[in-house]
Amino acid sequence: MLASERDPRLDRLFALVDGVYAIALTLLAVELVLPQASEHLHGEALLRSILEAWPKMLGFLTSFTLIAIFWHANHRAFHYLRRFDGRLDFLMLLQLLCIAFIPFPTAIVGEHVSDPVAQVFYFGAILATGLATLALWWHVSSEPRLLDPELHPRVIRRFYLNILAGPVAFPISMMVLIALGIGRLINPLVLGYLSMMVYILLGVFEGWEPRLDEEVEGAKVEDNHSEEE
Amino acid sequence: MLASERDPRLDRLFALVDGVYAIALTLLAVELVLPQASEHLHGEALLRSILEAWPKMLGFLTSFTLIAIFWHANHRAFHYLRRFDGRLDFLMLLQLLCIAFIPFPTAIVGEHVSDPVAQVFYFGAILATGLATLALWWHVSSEPRLLDPELHPRVIRRFYLNILAGPVAFPISMMVLIALGIGRLINPLVLGYLSMMVYILLGVFEGWEPRLDEEVEGAKVEDNHSEEE
Amino acid sequence: MLASERDPRLDRLFALVDGVYAIALTLLAVELVLPQASEHLHGEALLRSILEAWPKMLGFLTSFTLIAIFWHANHRAFHYLRRFDGRLDFLMLLQLLCIAFIPFPTAIVGEHVSDPVAQVFYFGAILATGLATLALWWHVSSEPRLLDPELHPRVIRRFYLNILAGPVAFPISMMVLIALGIGRLINPLVLGYLSMMVYILLGVFEGWEPRLDEEVEGAKVEDNHSEEE
Amino acid sequence: MLASERDPRLDRLFALVDGVYAIALTLLAVELVLPQASEHLHGEALLRSILEAWPKMLGFLTSFTLIAIFWHANHRAFHYLRRFDGRLDFLMLLQLLCIAFIPFPTAIVGEHVSDPVAQVFYFGAILATGLATLALWWHVSSEPRLLDPELHPRVIRRFYLNILAGPVAFPISMMVLIALGIGRLINPLVLGYLSMMVYILLGVFEGWEPRLDEEVEGAKVEDNHSEEE
Repeated sequence: MLASERDPRLDRLFALVDGVYAIALTLLAVELVLPQASEHLHGEALLRSILEAWPKMLGFLTSFTLIAIFWHANHRAFHYLRRFDGRLDFLMLLQLLCIAFIPFPTAIVGEHVSDPVAQVFYFGAILATGLATLALWWHVSSEPRLLDPELHPRVIRRFYLNILAGPVAFPISMMVLIALGIGRLINPLVLGYLSMMVYILLGVFEGWEPRLDEEVEGAKVEDNHSEEE
Repeated sequence: MLASERDPRLDRLFALVDGVYAIALTLLAVELVLPQASEHLHGEALLRSILEAWPKMLGFLTSFTLIAIFWHANHRAFHYLRRFDGRLDFLMLLQLLCIAFIPFPTAIVGEHVSDPVAQVFYFGAILATGLATLALWWHVSSEPRLLDPELHPRVIRRFYLNILAGPVAFPISMMVLIALGIGRLINPLVLGYLSMMVYILLGVFEGWEPRLDEEVEGAKVEDNHSEEE
Repeated sequence: MLASERDPRLDRLFALVDGVYAIALTLLAVELVLPQASEHLHGEALLRSILEAWPKMLGFLTSFTLIAIFWHANHRAFHYLRRFDGRLDFLMLLQLLCIAFIPFPTAIVGEHVSDPVAQVFYFGAILATGLATLALWWHVSSEPRLLDPELHPRVIRRFYLNILAGPVAFPISMMVLIALGIGRLINPLVLGYLSMMVYILLGVFEGWEPRLDEEVEGAKVEDNHSEEE
Repeated sequence: MLASERDPRLDRLFALVDGVYAIALTLLAVELVLPQASEHLHGEALLRSILEAWPKMLGFLTSFTLIAIFWHANHRAFHYLRRFDGRLDFLMLLQLLCIAFIPFPTAIVGEHVSDPVAQVFYFGAILATGLATLALWWHVSSEPRLLDPELHPRVIRRFYLNILAGPVAFPISMMVLIALGIGRLINPLVLGYLSMMVYILLGVFEGWEPRLDEEVEGAKVEDNHSEEE
């Protein structure tokens, strides 16, 4: 097997990963239920009951967006995977453990949207997922034989920065803000959701993501040049 | 990579998409429960309790058919995708957000089948899914490098018309009919379900779908002719 | 595209089909809950509460086995699919609708295991799934271009017989037996489960399935002979 | 088809297997709910309610780790599969039946964490999964045509030993320890979870798994030598 060929065992690993992400995304909606008492409401009273469920809907939106961002990063970064080992299996399963856990803090924060304990528990779960992602990328990038040998070290560093700035620093700063009492100005879940939307809009629609691909291309061209010299 | 080759990153994107659709389709049945009181019923009383659950079964049938139609359209249209970018990931995830949300309005309309608020909320969710689909197709078709370069512009326009006539115009007209009081003549959920069945039977079993393939073939032949001239 | 090549669109169709089957199989276990009152039981009382849940466990076992048999048949038969059309999408989705529905009658029969209404509702759902399978196979086999052109007509007829004898005739005879009062001798769910186990043990471990493969091979050899003549 | 080529029917089998594993992993989190009474708790009282849910979280962690280990073993061992038969389908489905069942004893042990009946029921379900895995590996390894013909018998024996030592002997010894009253010293679920973590850390991060691959390579080299002689 050439160093640039892909280990076929990665196919089943990604099948499991995409399966767990797909289910976690969809199961979030199971929490969306109106209180039992609304069963006998009609017209305007029903409308009010639906509108009063906004914290649950916000929890659904926020966690869906969050898991979507994690999946997108997993999709981008592991596109460069070429080899497979047992530690990769278990570190990926550790990330999936965190992803599968997220519906639980989402349900709690949906039920207690302005309670700092529920908010810290929620952002703590995001931090755990971020640290698992960091461990996963650390393993993958420190075993050079696991990644495409043509991948430039600059791209590897860029992914490190993205993980540290995103799923590690973001929930930590949210927890600090909650401790400082940001909740009296704006609901931290709303703030978290808005931050994620800004991240997606800035990053994907304007910014660094397309450039990343160009950088890979650029890096390869550069390398070819230095080889020629 | 040739312009007509398929980006391998599309495989994982479709794995996630098909996973979310499969789960949304199957989770709809979780709403199908008899009221707790029916636990001690037997014989005819049990039969009556099952029959009284018809609004939930109709909700299941309607939403299953609806998600099936969305999946079928996604399956047909994105068969022509060749390239991948970050916006595609996030717009596809936006469509999945709407699909994953559908069980919630389905549960509400199953519980309040003749309430206009529940009906408008249900068709509003369909409209949101339709608008996400429109945004997705708009992105895909306006970046010519994303689609198979051999795809004829007529097929692209045809998909636009299908989306506008189906998941955009259909829920809007249903909401107008509900506002005008159609509910006094026929239950809007029944009307919606019948419209979808007519759409499937006319479209798939008689009509335009097979011709679409022929059109693609025809368009290619035409193009070859003009190239020869 | 050669007549014996496989349409790549079948990949996503099977991804959806296998996803729905996998979820239906796993969701059956969600019905397995002890009554709320058992929350405070300990030791022997808890054991008795677990043992009293046998109808739910039997329902889980029976429906799991049933969906497994349907999946196995789908897996065997559609291995010979080569082409794709819109009707195939919708007929396959019709079968998935029935598969996704099965957890509902399973829950009812698990709650009312000796009630003929629950039993007939359960076997009626199996019959509906069988009829959807029949329609699917009828469409696939009547459009010769959809199947592998090397498939012998004898194999096509064999699948028809299997569907008619299995998911069509089996639930009908169970419903007749229930109407005749078999329930006074043996619980129809137990009888149904035992029949399925006999079917699997006879068919797969002893009998006709391996011979089917040989028959395909044999038929091809035969055909080659007649061509040579 | 050459003896070393892979039967394409294995693809759909693994799609179903990975689907069921992914769902079983994710559905475990559905059990994670706070008691209804905690709906109106705030601040410290909410925190106490979250902390009091530790048996459910431990059950989630233990079962997730367990299913992850089973998946990892399935992923490693069936990488060497080359052929397909009907018995393989049904024995794999028997393993999936056990995997899909695990959330039920997990829920019971999460609710009754220090009850020996719940503990024995839990480890009994693990034992059943282990025996199904043993039957599966026995079938696969006794039909030489199913596996890669280049696989060394030593690797086959090694997998037998792994299954016997892990999912067969481990739950049996846990059940013996529970009968002997280990529960008075340490909660058996905690002990089980710690054993699994030691297994993963020793096995994957230090130990025998990478050597297994080398052994396969070594065995091939050895065989080539003997052929040369």
